[in-house]
Amino acid sequence: MNLGKTNIDVASMGIDIGGTKTLGVVLGGEGNLLTQLRFPTPPSSSKIVELVLSIYSELSSEVAGNVDICSLGIGIAGLVDTSGQLRRAPNLVEADGLRIGEMIAPRIDVPVHVDNDANCAALAEIRLGAAKDVDNALLVTLGTGIGGAVVANGNVFRGGFGVAGEPGHMMVHPDGIGCACGANGCWEAYASGTGLRNLAVRQAKAGKLQAVLQEGGGFEGLTGELVSQAAFEGDQEAIAVVDEYAKWVAMGLANCAALLDPEVIVLGGGVIGSWELFGPKICESFEGFLIGSQHRSSVQIKPAKMGEAAGAFGACLLGTVHGATG
Amino acid sequence: MNLGKTNIDVASMGIDIGGTKTLGVVLGGEGNLLTQLRFPTPPSSSKIVELVLSIYSELSSEVAGNVDICSLGIGIAGLVDTSGQLRRAPNLVEADGLRIGEMIAPRIDVPVHVDNDANCAALAEIRLGAAKDVDNALLVTLGTGIGGAVVANGNVFRGGFGVAGEPGHMMVHPDGIGCACGANGCWEAYASGTGLRNLAVRQAKAGKLQAVLQEGGGFEGLTGELVSQAAFEGDQEAIAVVDEYAKWVAMGLANCAALLDPEVIVLGGGVIGSWELFGPKICESFEGFLIGSQHRSSVQIKPAKMGEAAGAFGACLLGTVHGATG
Repeated sequence: MNLGKTNIDVASMGIDIGGTKTLGVVLGGEGNLLTQLRFPTPPSSSKIVELVLSIYSELSSEVAGNVDICSLGIGIAGLVDTSGQLRRAPNLVEADGLRIGEMIAPRIDVPVHVDNDANCAALAEIRLGAAKDVDNALLVTLGTGIGGAVVANGNVFRGGFGVAGEPGHMMVHPDGIGCACGANGCWEAYASGTGLRNLAVRQAKAGKLQAVLQEGGGFEGLTGELVSQAAFEGDQEAIAVVDEYAKWVAMGLANCAALLDPEVIVLGGGVIGSWELFGPKICESFEGFLIGSQHRSSVQIKPAKMGEAAGAFGACLLGTVHGATG
Repeated sequence: MNLGKTNIDVASMGIDIGGTKTLGVVLGGEGNLLTQLRFPTPPSSSKIVELVLSIYSELSSEVAGNVDICSLGIGIAGLVDTSGQLRRAPNLVEADGLRIGEMIAPRIDVPVHVDNDANCAALAEIRLGAAKDVDNALLVTLGTGIGGAVVANGNVFRGGFGVAGEPGHMMVHPDGIGCACGANGCWEAYASGTGLRNLAVRQAKAGKLQAVLQEGGGFEGLTGELVSQAAFEGDQEAIAVVDEYAKWVAMGLANCAALLDPEVIVLGGGVIGSWELFGPKICESFEGFLIGSQHRSSVQIKPAKMGEAAGAFGACLLGTVHGATG
């Protein structure tokens, strides 16, 4: 007897497996948050699978009777191929190779979809956030590293192998600063949160930024946050570092825009917390770098709107995307 | 009485308006070339429109009775927006702003579609050429400048404003060689045919390449062709320039691939004439530059197959593309 169910709305669950935390959410049909759960991400593949199953079970019980969960989306930090396999996970090294969709699907009763966490965040931004209803967009997350996702013709673009949208390792200086990936001169070495620190360290080594250096207690403590704070407070040398940083961010965004011609670029990550400091500088430099900027529509650069739950929200939406993988 | 027409095949016409020449072709339903016509490109908008009308009329008369022309596609060198307007044409300066589709359509009796010439060439390569039936590809033309087109999910990707696929002006060196666009360090300044010459001039100024310099009769005559020829003949300093050039080409292609994750990259332009010299070096360097190259399918790099008629062939195919503009 299913008659009682006719008044029950459908909902979807999304679980975002990040390098440090795992967040599960349930969204109602209007994109409204019904409930959520957060845990530290365990190190190994088997423990990650267990955690996902336990979050699925706990959240399902919580909403049972009120909504029907119709799909589970999983976002995971790293290169995820079109088959849903995690192919390279610098922040989840013990989970390299994990086929999480194949492990979970037989053990639950709804379809499972898997994608990269930045692709999920982009989906959340184009469906619910800063690029709502935009057909062609680029999402770039300036965190410890740089994450990215390409939105083409209204959908997240996966590319041939599933790993499109990795702008952080585009090379912007052949003899440049060393990057975590082992190469030199990646955009990430200049334009991520780590990049802001790299630029500050370079200035401090050249004898600048001494007030900030002192406040941090030496090079170890010289963080991007301290530089931003000092710039906010009017420290001219810190402002110069922020200016240089904004130029590097703008240059890489213009490189991406030359290839992709997005209507909107959504910027996420830690830097977004200081949007009023960085945003106007980035937008201004961007126009100077973009090829043909006087002959095309201007590209809007906006801060991300969905916050740190973007990945989990977007994972919920994977079930609505044609071609998502399980 | 149309009965007689039932045995007449359909065909399409494509006209490629380049910086120096304009080529019109008629293709049969199988992509077979039925006839063609070539003229120098006139300088002004009005003369270009006249030329297109006259080619249309001449080619139509030639095939009349044998095939029915069902569409006219026009490829044009420069930034073409989604409305079909030419927004920036460095090689056709007097035609800036030309709305060629709107000028031609009322005067002929078939639908007219307009796109950028590199986008047309890409269409020819994915339908008939080196990337036949490939869903996700990148076409890059290394000529005087660098042209490009992005193929996403089986179609040429236009972007928000219509001008996606301009990799030449992605910046790869902040203090780099000056580019024709006015900026410094664009990929085009290193990886186009002009870029090959730039690298050779730099070496010659540093005292290398003296044999090639002498053969060319000084810096003015130091061309990329001479360097390629000398490298073919075993000149070690010329080989070093070709090696450096191949690295710059590979680096920029890897930058594009980080963002787009193509299955195939098709390289066109003058350099392709010396594929056996450049191709293997570019492919080898590319693997070293591509992020996560050990963790993803290899990207095939192939020479273009359609030759200098690619733009006109692709223009013929515009009528088969959903969303082409007129």
